[in-house]
Amino acid sequence: MSSTTGAGGLFPGGAWTTRAPKTSERVARELVNHIIGHDLAEGAKLPNEKQLVEVFDVGRTTLREALRLLETRGVITIRSGPGGGPVVRRPRPDDLREGLTLILQFAGASLTDVLEARATLEPRIASLAATRLTSNRIEELARSVETMRDSCEDHDVFLDENRRFHTTIAEASGSSGLWVFNETLKSIADGAVVGVEYTPRRRLAVAEAHHKIVEALRSRDPRSAEAAMRAHVEEAGAFWGRHYPELSARGVRWVQ
Amino acid sequence: MSSTTGAGGLFPGGAWTTRAPKTSERVARELVNHIIGHDLAEGAKLPNEKQLVEVFDVGRTTLREALRLLETRGVITIRSGPGGGPVVRRPRPDDLREGLTLILQFAGASLTDVLEARATLEPRIASLAATRLTSNRIEELARSVETMRDSCEDHDVFLDENRRFHTTIAEASGSSGLWVFNETLKSIADGAVVGVEYTPRRRLAVAEAHHKIVEALRSRDPRSAEAAMRAHVEEAGAFWGRHYPELSARGVRWVQ
Repeated sequence: MSSTTGAGGLFPGGAWTTRAPKTSERVARELVNHIIGHDLAEGAKLPNEKQLVEVFDVGRTTLREALRLLETRGVITIRSGPGGGPVVRRPRPDDLREGLTLILQFAGASLTDVLEARATLEPRIASLAATRLTSNRIEELARSVETMRDSCEDHDVFLDENRRFHTTIAEASGSSGLWVFNETLKSIADGAVVGVEYTPRRRLAVAEAHHKIVEALRSRDPRSAEAAMRAHVEEAGAFWGRHYPELSARGVRWVQ
Repeated sequence: MSSTTGAGGLFPGGAWTTRAPKTSERVARELVNHIIGHDLAEGAKLPNEKQLVEVFDVGRTTLREALRLLETRGVITIRSGPGGGPVVRRPRPDDLREGLTLILQFAGASLTDVLEARATLEPRIASLAATRLTSNRIEELARSVETMRDSCEDHDVFLDENRRFHTTIAEASGSSGLWVFNETLKSIADGAVVGVEYTPRRRLAVAEAHHKIVEALRSRDPRSAEAAMRAHVEEAGAFWGRHYPELSARGVRWVQ
């Protein structure tokens, strides 16, 4: 039963499609590889248009098409004016927000649906992070809990720490797929509740839930980390449903 | 402790942002509401440019900007030529594929990461679907298993039935968020293994796993549906890792 076709020969260029790419697409892809290969940071200047035309040996129109494509995809920004030109941006989860919001809107989804999806991702993320987080990161999380407790009167500090807490765990999960979705969902959920002020009591309850998660992560036990995170996100979903039923049921809407 | 700010007053227009939108953005959003409100199907013709200019009482440039925005977002396509004009398309999960692929590529993700994310979503989807699937849908799934078994020599039938099986369950889960991500991940994973032929024995093994899932769904037991799906997706991940280690470890790459 070894009649399977080896993958190697079928992907000579490692490409995941068989359609012959346009020249501008090839140039765009090579620029992506260049940025990743040289680990160019956000804000790094790329060669200017004239230099790129020479490097890739293509016409100016083709090059501009490639740059526009990369700009649309959030890989670069193009600075105008003298000394301007293409600058590295790097695509990020938030770039999917508008597209995802529109698909959800067409599917009739509500904030409750967004929270339900997060309630699926977060426990698994915590479970993976339990064995993958460095000790330094765990202490960072513990400090975030302290800050949240100490500043429970400050709404902005609360929101910042809340975001930092979940993002740190998601990044440490080592699962890029879960990290991307979770960040995108968070950004949709945050947008949905902009302006809703938590009470100091509510903020302390969230800090307490975070504390339990940190303890579970410290014990390096995936199951208890998963359970602590599940308790937290399910309680949060219930909170929104109870206190803001209209907001929770309201359809997700696209706003540019 | 009722110092929370009511949501209602803060969202007079139900908008999820506070930035004042450009006119073209407002027009685009109203067109989205029109399409959803009238449940216009893919392919439905929208009023032509001249009519839309009148309806929205905006200039031609503004209207074109709105239409271009909707085209970029996959909401409409614009047919050229006489009798042409804007036609409904409706955005779909696959529209996120390129954007997600790029973010994953910048994060250094591999096919294994994509499968790991699916292994998180699919069991939860099956668990939700266990109580939400109609009996008709369950029989459809049972027939899909039969077709897969009977046509185990036919690669295309296998792929079709495999896709249909997972999509039917995801749609029935009632969780739009999980459905969108899962479809997007599937489309990335499918692209990664294009051209890899399963053996008939492998296809029968997949049919057998699907059969067990259908039985669990029929029993309406979320836990056993979740367990059957988990066994299936984890086995699939292990299969790819064992038989195609290079393919599994290869980085996700953006291809337009």
